[in-house]
Amino acid sequence: MTGRYFEEFELGEAFEAGPRLVTQEDVEAFAAVTGDMNPLHLDPEYAATTRFERPIAHGLLGLSIATALVGDTGLTRGTLIALTGLEWTFLAPLYPGTEVSIRLRVAELRTSRKPGRGRLVWDAELVDEAGEVLQKGRLKALMRTRGS
Amino acid sequence: MTGRYFEEFELGEAFEAGPRLVTQEDVEAFAAVTGDMNPLHLDPEYAATTRFERPIAHGLLGLSIATALVGDTGLTRGTLIALTGLEWTFLAPLYPGTEVSIRLRVAELRTSRKPGRGRLVWDAELVDEAGEVLQKGRLKALMRTRGS
Repeated sequence: MTGRYFEEFELGEAFEAGPRLVTQEDVEAFAAVTGDMNPLHLDPEYAATTRFERPIAHGLLGLSIATALVGDTGLTRGTLIALTGLEWTFLAPLYPGTEVSIRLRVAELRTSRKPGRGRLVWDAELVDEAGEVLQKGRLKALMRTRGS
Repeated sequence: MTGRYFEEFELGEAFEAGPRLVTQEDVEAFAAVTGDMNPLHLDPEYAATTRFERPIAHGLLGLSIATALVGDTGLTRGTLIALTGLEWTFLAPLYPGTEVSIRLRVAELRTSRKPGRGRLVWDAELVDEAGEVLQKGRLKALMRTRGS
């Protein structure tokens, strides 16, 4: 099943995906693949000395899961050309054990001078089970047009 | 060894870290932990039908490695409170087999109304072996002040 082409999105349309449980094992796997071994994420004794009190997930793990959840909507399947940029704010710590979801809204649609593509900007919020916004921002995507 | 406190940075100072080899195994591990199974990253046959011609790393893997390389400078060890936000542009595909490095410059230093902390904004570029900029942007960090 193919997702939506650029022309099939409407400004202001809203979507959701998730939930996805984030575990301490995810945090350890993310540390291993990225090389970010900050003890804030891995060492409960060190984390206890910080404002966070216990290990938190890498902010980038939350953001990476957010972009994966965009894919889980199915909207961009085979129609996403590329993620071209983003603006993101980390508002609250993401503790392992949290189930996160994404809330999306189509914030901008811009046709391109080059044929076959258009620019879609998502307003995105990564939220926890209680609906608290942990991270939010804009995800900029290049989408295929119909027949391209 | 502790990194630098907020007051120990100067506007315009430049740093580098890397290189770090990005492998297809890294891409597969990143897909597994984030849940982003886009075949553009995992399936050579699908990737061959795209403008990229062969599998590329997730953009977010490049960005995540970029933030890990900031840590590799040692500058933020024990003095980083949190990454608070970022603005990022994905300029060119990151193909597995590439060795990436980070180039950093202190772009902004702002004292905080709250004691014990200051805001540091990095201008950052993720470059390949040839010095081509693959990704770039700004990373916003909250840093500890001396004695805090």
